[in-house]
Amino acid sequence: MALNLTQKLVQSHLAEGDLTPGGEIALRIDQTLLQDVLGGLVMLELEAMGVERVKVGLAAQYIDHNLVQNDQLNADEHMFLRSACRRFGVWYSRPGNGISHPVHMQSFGKPGQTLVGSDSHTPAAGSLGMLAFGAGGVEVALAMAGEPLQLRMPRVWGVKLTGSLPDWVSAKDVILTLLGRHGVEGGFGRIIEYYGPGLEGLTAMDRHVIANMGAEMGATTSVFPSDASTKAFLDGVGRGGDWTPLAADAGCAYDDHEEIDLSSLVPMIAKPSSPGNVVPVSEVAGTEIYQAYIGSSANPGFRDFAVAAAIVKGRTAHDRVSFDINPSTRVVLESLIRDGQLSDLIHAGARVHQAGCNGCIGMGQAPASGRNSLRTVPRNFPGRSGTREDSVFLCSPETAAASALTGIITDPRTLDMPYPRIVPPAMVPANTTVLVAPLAEAEARAVRLEKSENITTLPDLGKLGPDIRVPVMLKTGDDISTDDIMPAGTRVMPYWSNIPKTSEFTFEPIDDTYPKRAKQGGKERAGHAIVGGLNYGQGSSRENAALAPRYLGLEVVLAKSFARIHWQNLVNFGVLPLTFQDLADYDRLEMGDTVEITGVADALAAGREITATVRGGKATIRLRHDLSPRQIEILLAGGVINWLRGRIQPEPARTVA
Amino acid sequence: MALNLTQKLVQSHLAEGDLTPGGEIALRIDQTLLQDVLGGLVMLELEAMGVERVKVGLAAQYIDHNLVQNDQLNADEHMFLRSACRRFGVWYSRPGNGISHPVHMQSFGKPGQTLVGSDSHTPAAGSLGMLAFGAGGVEVALAMAGEPLQLRMPRVWGVKLTGSLPDWVSAKDVILTLLGRHGVEGGFGRIIEYYGPGLEGLTAMDRHVIANMGAEMGATTSVFPSDASTKAFLDGVGRGGDWTPLAADAGCAYDDHEEIDLSSLVPMIAKPSSPGNVVPVSEVAGTEIYQAYIGSSANPGFRDFAVAAAIVKGRTAHDRVSFDINPSTRVVLESLIRDGQLSDLIHAGARVHQAGCNGCIGMGQAPASGRNSLRTVPRNFPGRSGTREDSVFLCSPETAAASALTGIITDPRTLDMPYPRIVPPAMVPANTTVLVAPLAEAEARAVRLEKSENITTLPDLGKLGPDIRVPVMLKTGDDISTDDIMPAGTRVMPYWSNIPKTSEFTFEPIDDTYPKRAKQGGKERAGHAIVGGLNYGQGSSRENAALAPRYLGLEVVLAKSFARIHWQNLVNFGVLPLTFQDLADYDRLEMGDTVEITGVADALAAGREITATVRGGKATIRLRHDLSPRQIEILLAGGVINWLRGRIQPEPARTVA
Repeated sequence: MALNLTQKLVQSHLAEGDLTPGGEIALRIDQTLLQDVLGGLVMLELEAMGVERVKVGLAAQYIDHNLVQNDQLNADEHMFLRSACRRFGVWYSRPGNGISHPVHMQSFGKPGQTLVGSDSHTPAAGSLGMLAFGAGGVEVALAMAGEPLQLRMPRVWGVKLTGSLPDWVSAKDVILTLLGRHGVEGGFGRIIEYYGPGLEGLTAMDRHVIANMGAEMGATTSVFPSDASTKAFLDGVGRGGDWTPLAADAGCAYDDHEEIDLSSLVPMIAKPSSPGNVVPVSEVAGTEIYQAYIGSSANPGFRDFAVAAAIVKGRTAHDRVSFDINPSTRVVLESLIRDGQLSDLIHAGARVHQAGCNGCIGMGQAPASGRNSLRTVPRNFPGRSGTREDSVFLCSPETAAASALTGIITDPRTLDMPYPRIVPPAMVPANTTVLVAPLAEAEARAVRLEKSENITTLPDLGKLGPDIRVPVMLKTGDDISTDDIMPAGTRVMPYWSNIPKTSEFTFEPIDDTYPKRAKQGGKERAGHAIVGGLNYGQGSSRENAALAPRYLGLEVVLAKSFARIHWQNLVNFGVLPLTFQDLADYDRLEMGDTVEITGVADALAAGREITATVRGGKATIRLRHDLSPRQIEILLAGGVINWLRGRIQPEPARTVA
Repeated sequence: MALNLTQKLVQSHLAEGDLTPGGEIALRIDQTLLQDVLGGLVMLELEAMGVERVKVGLAAQYIDHNLVQNDQLNADEHMFLRSACRRFGVWYSRPGNGISHPVHMQSFGKPGQTLVGSDSHTPAAGSLGMLAFGAGGVEVALAMAGEPLQLRMPRVWGVKLTGSLPDWVSAKDVILTLLGRHGVEGGFGRIIEYYGPGLEGLTAMDRHVIANMGAEMGATTSVFPSDASTKAFLDGVGRGGDWTPLAADAGCAYDDHEEIDLSSLVPMIAKPSSPGNVVPVSEVAGTEIYQAYIGSSANPGFRDFAVAAAIVKGRTAHDRVSFDINPSTRVVLESLIRDGQLSDLIHAGARVHQAGCNGCIGMGQAPASGRNSLRTVPRNFPGRSGTREDSVFLCSPETAAASALTGIITDPRTLDMPYPRIVPPAMVPANTTVLVAPLAEAEARAVRLEKSENITTLPDLGKLGPDIRVPVMLKTGDDISTDDIMPAGTRVMPYWSNIPKTSEFTFEPIDDTYPKRAKQGGKERAGHAIVGGLNYGQGSSRENAALAPRYLGLEVVLAKSFARIHWQNLVNFGVLPLTFQDLADYDRLEMGDTVEITGVADALAAGREITATVRGGKATIRLRHDLSPRQIEILLAGGVINWLRGRIQPEPARTVA
């Protein structure tokens, strides 16, 4: 049977399941990627699991988000992550090397391999013919420990590219066009596979731009073939030997179809405040701006900076405009210096920042209030820039550079100059001296994790008891988000690797008495239940929203329905998620009621139905679970950390440090 | 009479007074400098004074401190400062141009001129034969309005330099040696004037390093002659025409004497946490470090970065070390790119930050807790790095770069390589396109100040009434600091240009009910007194510590004694500072007592003694003032803003916007 490239990549890594869309599959993982916002928790999870050394072929940790060190917290975390890399056999990419995705691509990207990363833009590696997934931290920890990745087989969406990009139109305009057509939910449950003659004109870094922002469409991942462009890229970074050709079989089928004639595209822009809010640049031309910002994982290539440099060369950015250059990687930065573009940018008034994520996720470069910011970054969600009432537009480097000069949103085609089409030169080869290789195993085992005061060993979470008998500690309405459960922001996020501290913020926006009440009654983690409405746990995938209440004693959530990712996170951290069979039972439960489920293990194994008694047995409530046998096993173990620890060293239990 | 250079510079600018040390003098000011932390308040003061356009020869505003934009506050302030520059006729140095002191030196420095700046390192301009003073914001506002600068004539401390610097020893080691000899109070009441044959080997930028850190000795300023090195610098930045030779007269005298044989110096380092805690590097060699940091106004020259680049070229910084490069100016950055040094630094693992002050004042780059940071910055006060429990050493670029390679404090003389003595090449000429020139007057008058929600017009402060009759709102102990009166930190400082908001934090560390109580009684600013102990208002010179309580109604402070700068600030903002003639009277005053002084104007004019009655006339307290006739005039006007406004436009009073 003729397979598309996605199917071929899946099939070559299939540990369980088959290629039927919607079916549960397990994939063997070749590489893992961590960034520093979530890396700390993952390393603590590895420690808690009792992992001695990663079992995946290649694991890398990048320091790219928390680069602005206003106090000791970020630097402390860097030192912890460095020690954890040394301890567990992980590559350590030091601060200043740049954004995980392009650095990984330059240093480790390999056609045909699978990658799981704790960052939603991990699919960018699809630009090299990899099958790459963003996932929650503990999923990455499992992959690092050698476990296959569990997911449902997505549909494969074939996007045929024809023609070639006109002057002043570049890769960003391709993905913005697709976002304009299908919106931010257009990719749900799908892998986007690009093919067709239009690919010829797109370099590997152009493809990175497109694959990166597949995440903004909600796609599971994006995949490109590995062809001459891929080889040129790998040759350029000195790793031509890692190239293998990869393509869909002739005559293969796709589950869904799309075609884009590149020749017909025009400069596009996503207006505030959604990546799906796309219009042609010409439609908003003339709008005054405060900022023009070039960089991020969504325009990380040499070309992206070089074209901006060519546009501003010998001119000066408007003096109202903060013209921000965020180099994506050390290698790109060195190349831009060598070939003169960085000088041109700086001379034109650019502010050059250290290589990393920076302003893309509100780590500096926040715009002035009520002013417009043009950015080549992937997202313009409200407030993400760091400015509460922000007004961020997403566009190509061409549009951003043209607008920097004029001080107003400018269709670059209206500039009075020929299009400076960039032919990327050979890159400066990846600088392996600043990528710190894993220690040899014997040396690694002697390494001590360097934990600052703020980095605490994960609390030991016990097994689920044979019976549950707990009071309802909180009753919520519908659509409770993980932001309601675990607030983000600069006040809470520095404590990400400190569960006892983080737990103090649990449910703060809804009921700030919850953490205190949950811990009362003399003993820690006395056990309790939460009653939720519809769509419980919607929004961000943050695992702390499950781990922190679990730490405070949460054993069971009874809800009308669950958001899928949070549901999975509850299971992963040992909390039993149950839904009401009769939604009216929601109204029968009150704060303080005691929920009783006896013989939990047997009940879960017996089928989908569970019966709970409340009010000392005076009432009965019929509930339902949707757990797989593997999830039941995980749940009974008290979560995935205990479950994996049990597989690694069945007995005795670890000593808590 | 043969004059030293300081005397010649003073004499050529003398508006009042003579050269006798300790006597009050007034100096005509040629240039002013603002940085962005205080610039906002100064611009609001100009607005409140009714200044239409600056009257000083050259005024410049730099955006160099608040470059890390975690939210909209800094960007909003930049936009406000830009509009104020356009409104008042001030040069605007946009973000990314670099640190005020070296940018000013490159762009506007002129031998023989006077400069006042709202930054304690303004004396660095002494490197070009200028007479340059750091001052409080309102003093700079007055200078911008054309008023002479008031000060006491300092003693002149002649420092004779002989010999020449050995390999691996540079300008930073000169000033550290002097700090080691005399400590952080060694320069009090003095101007340090350098002379002698040793000057020949010191470039203008070397002299900048030395003049800059005269501030760390508490010196009023530092002065260097204008000679061939000065000319070479000005030629290099394309302003050779601004050079004039300047030197002390042969046979002149100095009030104090010192000699340094440069040939005898060794690499020096200031240990935590005082710039005066100086020892030879060899004494602490071998200590493990986390950070090596090169840049700041205390090592801003091309040479300082180039020598570090030469040391690390082809090697890699230790992977535990955060090797931070903070370029000082856009011009230096462009020069380092052109000549290859930036590539060498980056390839060796450096993190390159935007040009500006950055980590020097805790705006990013905070070190990990309990780890050692080596920095070429001027100050290592506890916590200044942003890390509460920090451990910062001050050293030369040679020592910092050598230690970056080894990961331990390293005497650079022990490196196995010849000393890369840098002969500075021609600089890239100052980039005038990114320095925004003042608008023509007609155009400027039409400019509207762009105030965000957080930037408020200064409140109108009324005149001091004919009689004072106010309750004691607060009674403090001895040694109350301006930190006690007006806390600093990231929680308060963003509101620097917002007096109503800032005032809410007044006296928070001592009595957080004060702002509320002061505003009570139905009307705003009902008027009140504060009773203080010895040394009231010690510490930082921040003007808000006078302006905010004044805004809340403070009319008079009765104290055992005052710290000099705060005493001056109280007068400048219209608060009457009085001392007890009999210290025992301090004990007779309680919170809530009413203090009455009748006929204030006559009483102040009549002599040094003032009598107040308390408790409805039941008791009398004898007080004393030390005000000059000019200060009495300022005080009766309700502070220096009203006083100057009265001189500019005697009637009618301004309309509050």
